[in-house]
Formats: sequence, structure tokens, C-alpha cells
Amino acid sequence: MKTTRTRRLVAAALLFTLALATGLGRAADPATALGTGLLPSWNDGNTKQAIMHFVQRVTTPGGNDFVPPAERIAVFDNDGCLWAEQPAYFQALFVFDSIKALAPQHPEWRTQEPFASVLKGDVKAALAGGEKALLEMVMATHAGMSTGEFEQVVRDWLATARHPTTGKPFTEMVYQPMLELLAYLRVNGFKTFIVSGGGIEFMRPWAEQVYGIPPEQVIGSSIKTRFELRDGKPVLVRLPEINFIDDKAGKPVGIQQHIGRRPIAAFGNSDGDLQMLQWTTAGSGARFALLVHHTDAAREWAYDRSSSIGKLDQALEAARSAGWTVVDMKNDWKTIYPD
Amino acid sequence: MKTTRTRRLVAAALLFTLALATGLGRAADPATALGTGLLPSWNDGNTKQAIMHFVQRVTTPGGNDFVPPAERIAVFDNDGCLWAEQPAYFQALFVFDSIKALAPQHPEWRTQEPFASVLKGDVKAALAGGEKALLEMVMATHAGMSTGEFEQVVRDWLATARHPTTGKPFTEMVYQPMLELLAYLRVNGFKTFIVSGGGIEFMRPWAEQVYGIPPEQVIGSSIKTRFELRDGKPVLVRLPEINFIDDKAGKPVGIQQHIGRRPIAAFGNSDGDLQMLQWTTAGSGARFALLVHHTDAAREWAYDRSSSIGKLDQALEAARSAGWTVVDMKNDWKTIYPD
Repeated sequence: MKTTRTRRLVAAALLFTLALATGLGRAADPATALGTGLLPSWNDGNTKQAIMHFVQRVTTPGGNDFVPPAERIAVFDNDGCLWAEQPAYFQALFVFDSIKALAPQHPEWRTQEPFASVLKGDVKAALAGGEKALLEMVMATHAGMSTGEFEQVVRDWLATARHPTTGKPFTEMVYQPMLELLAYLRVNGFKTFIVSGGGIEFMRPWAEQVYGIPPEQVIGSSIKTRFELRDGKPVLVRLPEINFIDDKAGKPVGIQQHIGRRPIAAFGNSDGDLQMLQWTTAGSGARFALLVHHTDAAREWAYDRSSSIGKLDQALEAARSAGWTVVDMKNDWKTIYPD
Repeated sequence: MKTTRTRRLVAAALLFTLALATGLGRAADPATALGTGLLPSWNDGNTKQAIMHFVQRVTTPGGNDFVPPAERIAVFDNDGCLWAEQPAYFQALFVFDSIKALAPQHPEWRTQEPFASVLKGDVKAALAGGEKALLEMVMATHAGMSTGEFEQVVRDWLATARHPTTGKPFTEMVYQPMLELLAYLRVNGFKTFIVSGGGIEFMRPWAEQVYGIPPEQVIGSSIKTRFELRDGKPVLVRLPEINFIDDKAGKPVGIQQHIGRRPIAAFGNSDGDLQMLQWTTAGSGARFALLVHHTDAAREWAYDRSSSIGKLDQALEAARSAGWTVVDMKNDWKTIYPD
């Protein structure tokens, strides 16, 4: 009997191993086993239930809505969805800081707009030049160096820069409930991607450590690069030329280019995510779309239809008519940032 | 004692489970445990030893050359490296077949070059128009439809098309030793990518089934696409405009754009792969580069420096001076295609 029992135990453990290795066990077990113990920073209610119900549908083997693990693709916007975006996109703050840091090498910037205004601390005046001024500032701070050098610049900035109102490092202004959601999806066999209008190489240096999302699962806007041999050593040089804008109608294009199959779940917070959510939900089978609505002026910021940053207007209408899930940040989230 | 033994067995099985789940066990165990039982279609010798020695170095926990699983990125060229490429790139044969299939809708092609020559079966004359003619043929057959429609066209072609000399379906003209190599690397915690000059959307429909490489790990040349709502339904329309050429100096650019970190192993067969191998091996730590040299006129094709397809000249020189591994197909491979 004891030998039989031992064999059974070992067989069970090996079966479990096999299930884990194939991804099937990972897909089905944790969601049901851990139940509502998951997503601890989400208040119980319709939003949390909608998320968990969807995950259960697509991970239940034999169910009508079962989706094989390889097809469990989930895409997340970054600014305003995974981390905060007020009072300005954090990458814009990086641009302004970089201009200040680079100013000693550019004496001409003291009199040349939009740089002169940035150096005087007048961001509003700098941005008065519109898209052309913005592009000039982006190129002055993002191009003209190798990919390795730019990665280091981003890392150095994040190590010391602090948010103007919270005083926190920017990588600590990520949303705790969304971190839990990313982990919850992954434990259920999903592959999680970022699909952001932000710079792809601005996000990659920290996305793996902060979100658990490796660089190959980060999609974003980019400038062109060129391969060169410098003293026999290969480098990729960042050029002052737009390669791709991963925003609005660009998001489905970026998704197809990088992932090559349609996601089954999409998470955003602004009109820039509308087409990504349309593209995701237009596929056959079970689909999930969610918008984070910034409703919490006390713990974060409250903004939507009239905000110049993270404007949420058309996508909110679309969510209402399509029945997409909308997070009411104030009521759905127990906490905003990690402790 | 029996309880202790049972506990030990279960603990060992769970440890093994945990190791599998974290990828650590997957990385270290199979290579050493299975030894030369792996890569069965590779003859014993320097080439096979070089591959296995590298994998052992980067997967041995605590070793000087250990690489964490997340960084075990391996990139593979496709044409001439994972599948055959003679007497013409298979995608070129797809273009010619597609022109014939589309001809009834294009009566003007009967007199318009390069289409007229293709319809007469004179491929050489069609290609006499050089790059411009080739581009015209590619756009006529690859653009003007949705991404979903193009995927179906590729699937339909592969289901019926046969290779002109072997009579095999093209997806059976993949190299058995390379399939084993892909599997061997994956079981050792590597993430395997295709980095090909071929069309990204031409490879994705079958790469997962044939190579075990999912669409998000396929990098290739591409045309532009545009997001549109057609009768309220979102589609991505393929446009007759080049987006990216993933060949030669474009390969490191494509790798950075899609993967965002430098591979530690690269596999190619032609001068089109030279920069990819340079980029890969220029990183710090243990690196591996391999070229498949087509030396087997009896079982496959023998060609290198003077071939217009898969020309291997500069890269072969580079391999000799840098000490990259070169597969002598005739002597290193027991079999060419799967049974």
C-alpha cells in the first residue's frame, strides 16, 4: 500500500509538473484555487467581477470560450493606465530635464526656442511652438547617440528624478491594482504586452523590473536607427527621424507589426486607446476591453473629457455603447501606488 | 522511514516542478541529463560539440558564463537556414503563383511586364526588370487586401503548392537538424526568434506549427498597413508601400525594434546575416554565431560565393576570422528534411 501511495504521490506531482510545463495547469488552476484572494487592491464589485469572469471563461478547459495559452495576448497602454501621467507625460518631464542636462554642450540653446524657454523653466512657452517645437525637443534629447547610450541616459534619469508634486521616483508611480492585474493574467497563462504612444526605448529599460514585461513585449513610438561599425565595433545609432507613432489608429498597426495576432484583452485609459480596444474586441470568441477612468482627485488626479493629457471622451462613449468595463479609480481601487 | 521517503520524493518532485516553473531547471537539466541523445540528426563532431558546449556554458548555474533565462535570446534566419531556398526563395515562387491566380482579374497583365512574362512561364524575363519589376510583383500580390485576407492566401497556397524539383510541400522542406536545434535551445530556456529578409506576414501563418515559433517572435520585412473601419468593422489594410527591409544592416535594426535586447546566439547562412552575427557576437559574455554552409549537392544544393540566392562570401570570411561555427551540411547533418 505504501509503495502504491508513494507512486501515486510522485505521479501526481509529475502530472502537475507536466501541466505547469505545458502551460495548461498554469492556465486553469490558480484562478479557481485562489479565487477572490487575487487582485487584493481591487474592491469587490462589478469591475473586479468582470475581469475575473472573463479570465475564468477563457481558461476553463473544455469551456465554450476556452482560449489556448498561446493566444492569450493582453495589451496595456502605459501612460495613465499602468503609471500616472499628470501633470505631464513623464517622458515630457524627461525631455525637459535632458535639455537642462545637455545645455552646457549647447550654448546656442540660451537664445534658441523652444530650448530657451525650457532653460528658463517656462514649459508652457516652450510648448507654444506646437508639434514642431515638441519634435525638436524630442530629437535633441533622444537622437544622436547609440541605443546603449540612450538606455543608460534613461536609467540615470530614473535613478534621480522625482515627481514634481508627489516627490516619488517615477517608477513608484505605477498603479498597484494594475500590477496585480498583470500578475493575475500571467499566472493564468496570458502574455502581457505594453502598447503605448510613449517611446519604446524609454520604457524598455525599466518595464521588466517594474511590470514584469520583458523588452520584446514592449511596443511604442520610435525613431529610426542605423547600424554602423565604429572602430570595427557594431552600434545602432539613433537618428532624428520618426519611425513610427504608436498612438490611436497606430496602435492596431503596432500590435500587428509586433505581435502578429489579435489580442483577446486590451486595457487603456484615453482616446488614444480607442482603436486598440476596437481592434481587440472585433475578434471572434470571448474578448475583454477595459478603460481606467481617473476619478480620484484626492489620491491621484480626476480628469477625462477636457484634459489635454489622457483625454477620455470618444473612448468613454464607445465603452458605454459597447459594454466595455470602466474602472472608477476612486471606488474600484483600494490603493493607488505600491507601498 | 516510509513517510520520510514519501516526503522526500514529493519534495523532490515539487522542487523539480518549481525549477521547471522558474525556467531554471529547464535551463540546466535536460542538456546534461540527456547528453548526446539530443540533436539526433547531427553527426558527432566539432559543430555539434560547439553548440552543446555553448548551451552548457550559459545554462550552468553559478558558472562564469551563466545567462539568466530572460536574456537567452536566439535569432534564426529563415531562407537557407531553417528551410531551403533553391531554386528560388519560396516567397518568390508564391509571388509567381499568386500572379497566375490573380490574372483573371487583371486582363491588362497579359501585355504588361513583368506580369506578361510570369504568365508565359518565363520567370527569368520577368526578373530582368530588376528591383522595380520585383517590387511591382510583390505589391500586386501582397497589398490591397486586409491582413486577415493575406494570411488566408498564404495558408491556401501552402496547402496545395509543391516544390518544383522535390515535389514536397514547402513546409516539409525545413531542416530536421535545425528543428532539433530550435527545440534543444527552447528546452534550455532560450526564446527563439526568426529574423528573416522574407515577409513577416508570409512566415507567421505557419511558423508556429512548423517551427514552434509564435507570430510575436517572427521578425521580417514588411509593407505598411492602415487601420480602417469598414462598415463599422476594424480592418488593417495592406498598402503597396515598403515599411521595413529586414536584411543585412537592417537585421540588427529589426532585432532592436522587436526584441529590444541583444541576442546571445545567432544562426544564419548568407551574407544577409553578416551584420546580425556581428551585432550578436559584439555583446559581452558568452556568444554564439553559426552559419549553415550548403555543401550537399546530392541531398540538397551546394552553393556559396557565386550564388545569386543565399550568397555566402563575406560572412564566410568573417566566420573564419572570428571563429564562428560553420555547419558543413554534407558531413554534419545525418538527414536534411523530416521523414
